[in-house]
Amino acid sequence: MKPINVGLLGIGTVGWGTWAVLARNREEISRRAGRDIRISVVADKETLKARKLTGGKARITADAFEVVRDPEIDIVIELVGGVTVARDLVLAAIDNGKHVVTANKALLATHGNEIFAAAQKKGVMVAFEGAVAGGIPIIKALREGFVGNRITHLYGIVNGTCNYILTRMKHEGADFASVLKDAQAQGYAEAEPSLDIDGHDALHKIGILASLAHGFWVNPRHIYVEGIRHLTALDIKFADQLGYTVKLLGIIKQIDDSRMTNNAASSKSSRKSKIENRKSSRRIQVSVYPTLVPNAHVLASVNHVFNAVFVRGDVVGDTLFYGRGAGKDATASAVLSDLADAALDLKFGTKHRLPPFVPHELDGAVAPIEEVIARYFVRLSVVDVPGTLAKIATVFGQSNIGISSVIQPEGHEGESVPLILMLHDAPNGAVTRALKKIAALAVVKGAPVMIRVENFE
Amino acid sequence: MKPINVGLLGIGTVGWGTWAVLARNREEISRRAGRDIRISVVADKETLKARKLTGGKARITADAFEVVRDPEIDIVIELVGGVTVARDLVLAAIDNGKHVVTANKALLATHGNEIFAAAQKKGVMVAFEGAVAGGIPIIKALREGFVGNRITHLYGIVNGTCNYILTRMKHEGADFASVLKDAQAQGYAEAEPSLDIDGHDALHKIGILASLAHGFWVNPRHIYVEGIRHLTALDIKFADQLGYTVKLLGIIKQIDDSRMTNNAASSKSSRKSKIENRKSSRRIQVSVYPTLVPNAHVLASVNHVFNAVFVRGDVVGDTLFYGRGAGKDATASAVLSDLADAALDLKFGTKHRLPPFVPHELDGAVAPIEEVIARYFVRLSVVDVPGTLAKIATVFGQSNIGISSVIQPEGHEGESVPLILMLHDAPNGAVTRALKKIAALAVVKGAPVMIRVENFE
Repeated sequence: MKPINVGLLGIGTVGWGTWAVLARNREEISRRAGRDIRISVVADKETLKARKLTGGKARITADAFEVVRDPEIDIVIELVGGVTVARDLVLAAIDNGKHVVTANKALLATHGNEIFAAAQKKGVMVAFEGAVAGGIPIIKALREGFVGNRITHLYGIVNGTCNYILTRMKHEGADFASVLKDAQAQGYAEAEPSLDIDGHDALHKIGILASLAHGFWVNPRHIYVEGIRHLTALDIKFADQLGYTVKLLGIIKQIDDSRMTNNAASSKSSRKSKIENRKSSRRIQVSVYPTLVPNAHVLASVNHVFNAVFVRGDVVGDTLFYGRGAGKDATASAVLSDLADAALDLKFGTKHRLPPFVPHELDGAVAPIEEVIARYFVRLSVVDVPGTLAKIATVFGQSNIGISSVIQPEGHEGESVPLILMLHDAPNGAVTRALKKIAALAVVKGAPVMIRVENFE
Repeated sequence: MKPINVGLLGIGTVGWGTWAVLARNREEISRRAGRDIRISVVADKETLKARKLTGGKARITADAFEVVRDPEIDIVIELVGGVTVARDLVLAAIDNGKHVVTANKALLATHGNEIFAAAQKKGVMVAFEGAVAGGIPIIKALREGFVGNRITHLYGIVNGTCNYILTRMKHEGADFASVLKDAQAQGYAEAEPSLDIDGHDALHKIGILASLAHGFWVNPRHIYVEGIRHLTALDIKFADQLGYTVKLLGIIKQIDDSRMTNNAASSKSSRKSKIENRKSSRRIQVSVYPTLVPNAHVLASVNHVFNAVFVRGDVVGDTLFYGRGAGKDATASAVLSDLADAALDLKFGTKHRLPPFVPHELDGAVAPIEEVIARYFVRLSVVDVPGTLAKIATVFGQSNIGISSVIQPEGHEGESVPLILMLHDAPNGAVTRALKKIAALAVVKGAPVMIRVENFE
């Protein structure tokens, strides 16, 4: 039987990992895929480097567009990155009837709707296991393993750089800036780190997981995101005193609209009426923000660059998937898994993968953050004078927000001291408005810090 | 399009769970499987109960053999249990060209070779996600997600009853017998508990995982097994003092034969010459026994009835899969996942699943336990007289076994006291022989306790 010919677009870190692993474990992979798989063309601007890496075992070209049009190529692996040329390449490959394997989360999060619609029309598959949580087969678990489940909750630690920084901040009591600098020196963070530390990379991944888990297209513009740049050693220390660890979590939750409070119901969201016209069962929370996780919860133990995705299904209950979220080999492992799936489809002449969600479905069912209910850790810097706590508590009380606990370390009267409050379930909008009023009090110095709390109930 | 007709054999706990979940989430499951799926016949000896549970929505029969021959049935779900009638039913279903879904680990462990050979010949699939670790999609992860990997290490907590008992023994300082009794009263252990507590259930599951991970049939007779019946509160307490938690682990490891010691090489295993004729790279350890796991390792935190499988792939690195290992709903979730996969195959007229391993391959590549190298926790009851430790240490020294640490709690001279030794890497055979000599010493009272230690290096 004729081997399956693969065109590899981009032989950077992951591309080189994919090439090397396929070369090393080729016999085993081909046996399991049922047919010999070979990368016959590699497209890369750096043709000399590509030629050196592949040692003459593949044709090299600088023109990726030539590969996606090549009639000899059955499957295209897109590892070019970015959302412009990569989009054109993927759409052209689909248009030419080729299966596509990609690890490009930004591309799928941004243009997934268009790409999956095109793939469905052409009857080809676009596989993307490597786009989320590296080698952890979470895409396969959600699409196939949990096919009998409604995914009621999903919590993901999906950015290794942030998790590495937060782990070191906790273990060393260090501040964000110094750990970031060291992480950059050691190669755990980019020189321009904002894609990671401001949560955008996690947002892309969580958008993909949300679309998969709920079967409709989640526009990344509707995902609320906060990064970890503003977190201080003080916040992490007080969180620990309260029994919590701070993690950057992607959160996808079915919203139980019966829990909506008056506060939320009266919030003046511009998308409110649009949303009210939908079935409440389709409303979901999709967001990325630093979160206090109870120390005893398994996600609190996921450290350094490791990723983990905690999934609660209505049938299967609680599950966890853990592993390396990025890097040459972990992502190559996922790319090869996709490659084997695509090869199986080709072998049997079927194109059986359904799109991961219904393309072009309206995406209004993501609830705006203001209406999402959470718990909160609040750190204020206050002047230690009689009546301070009363003034603050009054604002929360008037906003119908309950305080569950308070830490006020002993200070000197008249000086500025930290005041930590844990708040009961309340809509984000109400808490934001209350904190604005509190920030305006004369006894409160500087901006309040607010970090959400998740108890996994 | 005509719906897919499923015949359900056995509507006990898991069968009823499968029926109920399919009824509840049918629209979603059918959407993802691409075709309507309905259980049209249910076979159960208790026809009245079956009729009541299904509410007239399926045909009921007492004769399961009639179902596996029914030309209207596309897929058979075998939830009868046992290895006799279940074997006949599964082989008959295959012979009639039907896909089979089963959660019967004993059947697959015992007759897997015959069943998968028959399925391959007929071009049908036998899916078994529910057979190992309940709803955790570990079969799919190993077969498809890690297709690009060699699985160098796999450690599984795959028996919920044992894990529940060990968790309570540790947390409560309680003895085995009292916790077992309570577990039986609460329904976490069977009235006849030996299948679980003697490790046979775990053995079945580990045999299936080993066959999958290494691509050849692992005969359950060649899997070494020890249960948890002999563990005492004292062992668990001393293990904890040393920084370890005792878990019943299934262990599958590629053996690095360069690490074989003279002891092992000279062991008089009856299968030795057979094994020496094979490529050393195919030798694996497959065993189930109580193991000391470092408290900081993620497997030490897997508590109560939860299962977890830790997989190390040569490409992906370390991964963990965690969830409920048994029960109506978790297993139903897995059965439905298999059902959707089988339905997809039927929809496209392909029978594309390869057998999970090469049937009829010789299975001599499982190394006998005597040759497996491990570390050890040893607890002796000794008479506290001068020279006791020297006598014991001499035996280990003569056997070329290193001692890495010793705990000897303060006692009264002449009385019987516990003595705990941690041993360095050594072959099981050498340690067993040394302990026999030590047991014969006059200063040693009662039988030595030996528990293996795993450091996940």
